Amino acid sequence: MDINNERLLQYFKQFSAIGATPGGGVHRLALSDEDKQARDLFVELLHDLGAEVKIDDLGNIYGIKQGTNPEAEPVVIGSHLDSVPNGGKYDGAVGVLGALEVLATLVDAETTHQRTLIIVNFTNEEGARFPKPMIASGVLAGVYTTEDMHSLQDESGTTIREELERINYLGAPEHRLTNIDSFIELHIEQGPYLINENAHIGLVQGIHGLSWHDVKFTGKSDHAGPSPMKDRRDAGLSAMHALTRVEDYVLNLQDETRFTTGRFQLAPGVVNAVPGEARFSIDIRHPLNDTLKERIETIQQMIEDEAARRGVKSEMSDLSYMPPVPFSTRLLQAAERITSQKNIDAPQLYSGAGHDAMYMSHLGETLMLFIPSLDGVSHNEQEESRWEDIVTAVDVLGDLVLEQLNR
Amino acid sequence: MDINNERLLQYFKQFSAIGATPGGGVHRLALSDEDKQARDLFVELLHDLGAEVKIDDLGNIYGIKQGTNPEAEPVVIGSHLDSVPNGGKYDGAVGVLGALEVLATLVDAETTHQRTLIIVNFTNEEGARFPKPMIASGVLAGVYTTEDMHSLQDESGTTIREELERINYLGAPEHRLTNIDSFIELHIEQGPYLINENAHIGLVQGIHGLSWHDVKFTGKSDHAGPSPMKDRRDAGLSAMHALTRVEDYVLNLQDETRFTTGRFQLAPGVVNAVPGEARFSIDIRHPLNDTLKERIETIQQMIEDEAARRGVKSEMSDLSYMPPVPFSTRLLQAAERITSQKNIDAPQLYSGAGHDAMYMSHLGETLMLFIPSLDGVSHNEQEESRWEDIVTAVDVLGDLVLEQLNR
Repeated sequence: MDINNERLLQYFKQFSAIGATPGGGVHRLALSDEDKQARDLFVELLHDLGAEVKIDDLGNIYGIKQGTNPEAEPVVIGSHLDSVPNGGKYDGAVGVLGALEVLATLVDAETTHQRTLIIVNFTNEEGARFPKPMIASGVLAGVYTTEDMHSLQDESGTTIREELERINYLGAPEHRLTNIDSFIELHIEQGPYLINENAHIGLVQGIHGLSWHDVKFTGKSDHAGPSPMKDRRDAGLSAMHALTRVEDYVLNLQDETRFTTGRFQLAPGVVNAVPGEARFSIDIRHPLNDTLKERIETIQQMIEDEAARRGVKSEMSDLSYMPPVPFSTRLLQAAERITSQKNIDAPQLYSGAGHDAMYMSHLGETLMLFIPSLDGVSHNEQEESRWEDIVTAVDVLGDLVLEQLNR
Repeated sequence: MDINNERLLQYFKQFSAIGATPGGGVHRLALSDEDKQARDLFVELLHDLGAEVKIDDLGNIYGIKQGTNPEAEPVVIGSHLDSVPNGGKYDGAVGVLGALEVLATLVDAETTHQRTLIIVNFTNEEGARFPKPMIASGVLAGVYTTEDMHSLQDESGTTIREELERINYLGAPEHRLTNIDSFIELHIEQGPYLINENAHIGLVQGIHGLSWHDVKFTGKSDHAGPSPMKDRRDAGLSAMHALTRVEDYVLNLQDETRFTTGRFQLAPGVVNAVPGEARFSIDIRHPLNDTLKERIETIQQMIEDEAARRGVKSEMSDLSYMPPVPFSTRLLQAAERITSQKNIDAPQLYSGAGHDAMYMSHLGETLMLFIPSLDGVSHNEQEESRWEDIVTAVDVLGDLVLEQLNR
C-alpha cells in the first residue's frame, strides 16, 4: 500500500512527545494525564480523517470507517498507547499509528471496501500501572469480568473505573467489539530474533504459552562456621543445583522452550548463615500446548529430584497458566504471499510475550506482524526500531488489511 | 575438680529464667533490661562468694579472687551473658556459670593459689543488638577503639555508651584487663561435630579464619518470553553455575574449608524478567592462614571464570577478613593430659565461629573447651546441650584452671 511516509513520521513525532522522558523514551502509564493526552490526540486525528469514534466501558477507543456491506464482520487493526514506566516510544504506539496511517491512506485515496475497518487503542495493555496486562481485550474475550477490571487498583488505591471517569473515557458497554472478521496487530518484536536474522519484518505464528510457579526449598539453617560442608542441608545451593540442571536440559533441547528464574531469595539471608530456605520463581514457555505441559512436568521432576538428593524439602505452587495461542493460518499465508510479492524476507516466529492479539483471537482470525527491535531491547528508554522497517511493516499491513476488507 | 552439681544447676536455672521465652530459650540482648538483670545477679553471686567485683569502661564485669603472688599474671575464665534475639539458654551463659562454679568450688574448699583468678562476663559478644560482635574483648586486644565501640548504635539509634550509663555498668578504664597469664573459655560447640563423634567434650585448637565478600554479576536483563535461551546473559543462572561449581570444589577437598552463600538477590527481580544483575555474599573459612588465602584466590578465580564464560561481568569486593587464631599448644596439651587421666574421650576441633577467646589470645595463652550441641543447633530456642556434658566440662575446666593458678 502506498502509504505516506511523511505523515506517518509526523504521527510518530507527535505521540513520542507525549510523556517524553529525558532519556528518549516515554512515560505514559495507563489512564494517566499523559495517556489522556495521547487518547485525545488519537480521537482528534480520527475525527480529522472523518472516522466515527466510539468508546466502550473499558475505555477502548474505536475509529470506524464504514464498509459497503453493513452485514459483513469488521476488520480490526491497532494496539495500545500506554507504556511501562520510563518505557520506549515504539512498544504499542507503532501499532496504533501504523493502523492510523492505513486508515488515512484509504481515506486519501477514497478507497471503498466491503467490510468496515476499525482502528483500536486498547486500555492498560501493559499492566504496569494497574497490575494486570491486556485487561481490555481480556474482557472482550470473556476472560475477565468488567466489574473485576473496573475495580483494579494502582499503587495509590485508585481504580480503573475512577480513572476512566476522571479522564472522561468511560464509554458505553454497547460500543464493545463483539463479532469481528479479523484482527491484525503490528508491534515491535521486543526480542533479538529478527535483528539476528537480518530481517526487516517478521510474521508471528502465535504466542507462547506460559506457566509460572513459585518454588520453596526447605533445608536446615546452620552457622556458616561450625557446620561441616558435607552435613549441610543448604536450601540455597540445592536450589541452585536444581536450576542449573534445568537450564542445561533446556539449552540442550535447542527448541522454543524458555526457562527463567527472575526471583530468588534466601532466608535467613545473612552472610554467615547457611540458608535454611530458598524461594524462587520459574517461568516456562513453549508455543505448543502439549509440549509446554511435558516441559513443565519434566522440569518440576528435575527440581524435586535435586531437592530430594540433598534431603531438602521442595514445594511448588502454580502462579498462572496461559495456554499457547496459535494465530490464523489463513492470515499468515496471506501475509506470506504479500511479502513474497514485494521480495521482502519475512521469517516466521513465535511471540514470547503476551499481546492484546492473544485475547482478540477469541473473537476472530488474528495475526501479528513484528518489527525488529535493535539489540532486542524493550520496556526501557533505549528501545529502538529502524524507521525503514516501520514503513515496510505499515506498507505490508495496509495491503493485508485491504485484502481482508474485500474478502 | 569436685564441683557442686546442684549449685551449678541452680545457677543455670536462675539465669535461664532471665529473659526466658515461651519457646524455651532466652531473649537477652546486650545492655537491655534483661541483660542488666543477669548482670546484677552475676555481681550479687560474685559478692556472695567474697570476690572483689570490678567493671571497666566497656561494661565488662570481673569477679576477682586474689592469689598469693600479687606479681603473677592472672588466670581468666568466663564468657558472655548476652544472647541473640530469641536465642538459646546455653550459648555464652554456660561459660560464665561454669566459671562461677569453679570459683565457688575453690572458695568452698578454701583453696589458695599463686595466681589471681578472674571470672569475666564480656559485653555484647553476639553483636546482635549493636552490630559488631565481641566488641569488649576487641577493645582489650586493641583491635577496636573505645570511642568507636561506645558510639555503636542499635536500630533505634541508642549508643552502647548511653545504655552502659542507663543500666549503670559504665565502669573505669583502669579496671580493664591488660596482661594475663591465660584465658580459658567454656562454650557450646554450636555445630554437630562433637555430637556426631559421640563425644562429651571437645578441645579447641583454634578459630577458623574467615573472609567475607560481596559479589555482583552484571549480565543483561531481558523479557523472559522473546529472548532465546542461547542469546541470554542471565546474571542469575551464571552466578548459580559459579556457586555450584565452587561448592563441588570445596566438597571434593574434604578438609576444613567452609564455603557459604547466605545472601542472594536478583534484579529486576520479577517473574518474567531474565535477571540482568545478581548480588550475593560469600563466606570462606579455614583454620590455617596460608590455606585460607589459597582458597580465597582459587574460589575468586572460579567465580570470575564462570562469569566470563557467559559474557557476564563480575565484581568482587572484600567485606571483612579475620585471620585464623591458633590457641595455646601448652594449654591444649594440659587439657589433653587432664581428660586422658579422667578417661574422657576429648576430640580436638577448630571453632568455625568467632568467640571472645579470639581477641583474648592477643593478651595471653588461650584455650576453649566445647560442650556438644544437640543436632548442632544454636542461635535459636531449640539450642540444647546434655546436662552431664556440661558437668563434665566444668569439672575439666576446674582442674585445668587450678593447674594454671599454681603454674
